[in-house]
Amino acid sequence: MEVPPPKSLQQPLYVPNKTLMGPGPSNYSQRVLDALSNPVLGHLHPECLQIMDEIKAGLKYAFQTTNEATMCVSGSGHAGMEMALCNLIEDGDVVLLGPTGVWGHRAAEMARRYGADIRYVEARFGRSLKMDDLEFAFEGHNPQIFFIAQGDSSTGILQTHIKEIGELCRKFDCLLIVDTVASLGGTEFLMDAWKVDVAYTGSQKVLGAPPGITPISFNQRAIQHVLKRKSKVKVYYFDVMLIGQYWNCFNKPRIYHHTVSSTLLYGLREALAQLCAIGLENVIHRHQECAWRLQDGIEEIGLEMFVSDENDRLPTVNTIKVPPGVDWRKVAEYAMRKYNLEISGGLGPTVEQVFRIGLMGENATIEKVDLVLNILKEAIQSTQLNKNDKSKI
Amino acid sequence: MEVPPPKSLQQPLYVPNKTLMGPGPSNYSQRVLDALSNPVLGHLHPECLQIMDEIKAGLKYAFQTTNEATMCVSGSGHAGMEMALCNLIEDGDVVLLGPTGVWGHRAAEMARRYGADIRYVEARFGRSLKMDDLEFAFEGHNPQIFFIAQGDSSTGILQTHIKEIGELCRKFDCLLIVDTVASLGGTEFLMDAWKVDVAYTGSQKVLGAPPGITPISFNQRAIQHVLKRKSKVKVYYFDVMLIGQYWNCFNKPRIYHHTVSSTLLYGLREALAQLCAIGLENVIHRHQECAWRLQDGIEEIGLEMFVSDENDRLPTVNTIKVPPGVDWRKVAEYAMRKYNLEISGGLGPTVEQVFRIGLMGENATIEKVDLVLNILKEAIQSTQLNKNDKSKI
Repeated sequence: MEVPPPKSLQQPLYVPNKTLMGPGPSNYSQRVLDALSNPVLGHLHPECLQIMDEIKAGLKYAFQTTNEATMCVSGSGHAGMEMALCNLIEDGDVVLLGPTGVWGHRAAEMARRYGADIRYVEARFGRSLKMDDLEFAFEGHNPQIFFIAQGDSSTGILQTHIKEIGELCRKFDCLLIVDTVASLGGTEFLMDAWKVDVAYTGSQKVLGAPPGITPISFNQRAIQHVLKRKSKVKVYYFDVMLIGQYWNCFNKPRIYHHTVSSTLLYGLREALAQLCAIGLENVIHRHQECAWRLQDGIEEIGLEMFVSDENDRLPTVNTIKVPPGVDWRKVAEYAMRKYNLEISGGLGPTVEQVFRIGLMGENATIEKVDLVLNILKEAIQSTQLNKNDKSKI
Repeated sequence: MEVPPPKSLQQPLYVPNKTLMGPGPSNYSQRVLDALSNPVLGHLHPECLQIMDEIKAGLKYAFQTTNEATMCVSGSGHAGMEMALCNLIEDGDVVLLGPTGVWGHRAAEMARRYGADIRYVEARFGRSLKMDDLEFAFEGHNPQIFFIAQGDSSTGILQTHIKEIGELCRKFDCLLIVDTVASLGGTEFLMDAWKVDVAYTGSQKVLGAPPGITPISFNQRAIQHVLKRKSKVKVYYFDVMLIGQYWNCFNKPRIYHHTVSSTLLYGLREALAQLCAIGLENVIHRHQECAWRLQDGIEEIGLEMFVSDENDRLPTVNTIKVPPGVDWRKVAEYAMRKYNLEISGGLGPTVEQVFRIGLMGENATIEKVDLVLNILKEAIQSTQLNKNDKSKI
């Protein structure tokens, strides 16, 4: 053996306990944490299949859908985005995207690789898309597929009017993909009533399950589209007909498609059980209440929300303008060093411009809102004091 | 809300403790299990990045490579297969595969979707590929890429002569992908010395980490090939240049590519730490000793190995012919019902024909070998007794 074992693995594993109030992941509940230390199960064992069935039922509730093709893809939220696009797109399809932050552009990057003809309808900076702009864009581009994020975690923008967008898509015989990674459970989302064809969400955001397994749902219209494809879905790993058969979505005998991570299933199952126990409406209400309290507090300490229109504000990931003369990095470092609390900076179009404060799952409580407000205030003051000290020297 | 919460999620999570001696996953060690209940970390937190660095170092040892582009893809072993193929293949490339079971065919299914021109070199049933056949196939097909599984878990075949195959590939200016999902740590694999261009393995086999995160390594020759592509890699999620940058493989600033599952990192990190502490050579030796003891025991109880040539037998997944008149399903059910022990049936070409007994990680011990032999014998006898009882009626 020529390559020796590394010395770094002689040290014990080090994992600090932090309060994660950035854009995700959010902290696990004790119930989710306890579930993770269950022994591994085989991916076709009846007990594992039962947990998958329970997850499927819980996801139908979370997405508010009766779609049989409700399942998980074994990968991060990005894998959900890939799976949605990869199954619907064929070479040359016109894919219209409505970016309100980085995620629309990320989806475009993926869709282009699948051979799509990419078009954009852009919102005004810091705003959600308006129906007028959308109608104009649909008429101009006549897309086969429209992609939108309900909540864009890079800007904190909530896309309203998904229901109207659903109707618009039907009018133009277009398929609607909605990214609910950062929004599901934190704001209303009614997949069936709003005529959304494909939706996926993040396990590690409001649900508070581990990252690595991503819920996704296809309605019958989307499945029929996949069945009528002229070419095979380009990625075996993301093929909804195969994953769906493994997840027992099509009333056909289960097949072995890949080895699902039973450990991640345990966490997600327990997170969904908690959602069901508390009730989706209560969970959404709590997230909204927390966001409003945060927004009030932000004003009180003299800061300003990045998203000016209150209706366009995502309750789960809140973006706050970094005041002039304040270094966001020093603020975030102070909060982490002194309180083990994560406050995040911007991403993509908001980089260097905003703080991002996540109120998701376990961290969407009044106590946590007050905690993060106090720490944010103290941290900003501290960096200002240091500055003044230095300027005196 | 029109879709109510499901009743099934009112029940507690049920996970039995089993001894998993099928083709994988294998049982976690207590150390791995303990690691899984650590709190979640952000995917760009320094502590998380440090764990990723430690994993990378551990994987270099496991693969016996100095490749900087050693990382994990966030998905099951199938995601490793996709990533290897997707980065190397461009439309029309001739991909030669040497199936010794289902995995070569699975790789072909993926490669075809990426636009490859698929060719096969087939081994005789129940045998590994011989160098004569390979040389003949390389001359006939002149492939750009050659794919082989070192260990095929569906047949229990070990492909020997990977070193000679590596030389053959260089001679034909062909890239060599080796699937070591079921073999790494159970038999010798020297990525650099054998001139393997891309290799990946399963976390949940010999390593005994949770499924859902898949180690993969690209050598400089493979990376140069990717950099010279005429077209973009077809899947953003599997793009080695992006994942590698996130895993700090190219001496460039880290980027956010996707949200890695810190929970899965903890498990893999601890599994690799154990491998390092015991030593790769010792681990391989133990797996081989266990396989030999199992093979002796199989003969003693009057059964026959499926792979006739001893040199072609994979130590980790052992295939045993189901004797005439025995229903393998009843044997497996008996072992599970009475002892919570998994013995598996065949897959693909061996379906209905073999038992598959996995000796991997925690289950590669002399005690476990003797246990599985005793239970297999008892289970077969029991099903025979029941049959005789019934025939008396």
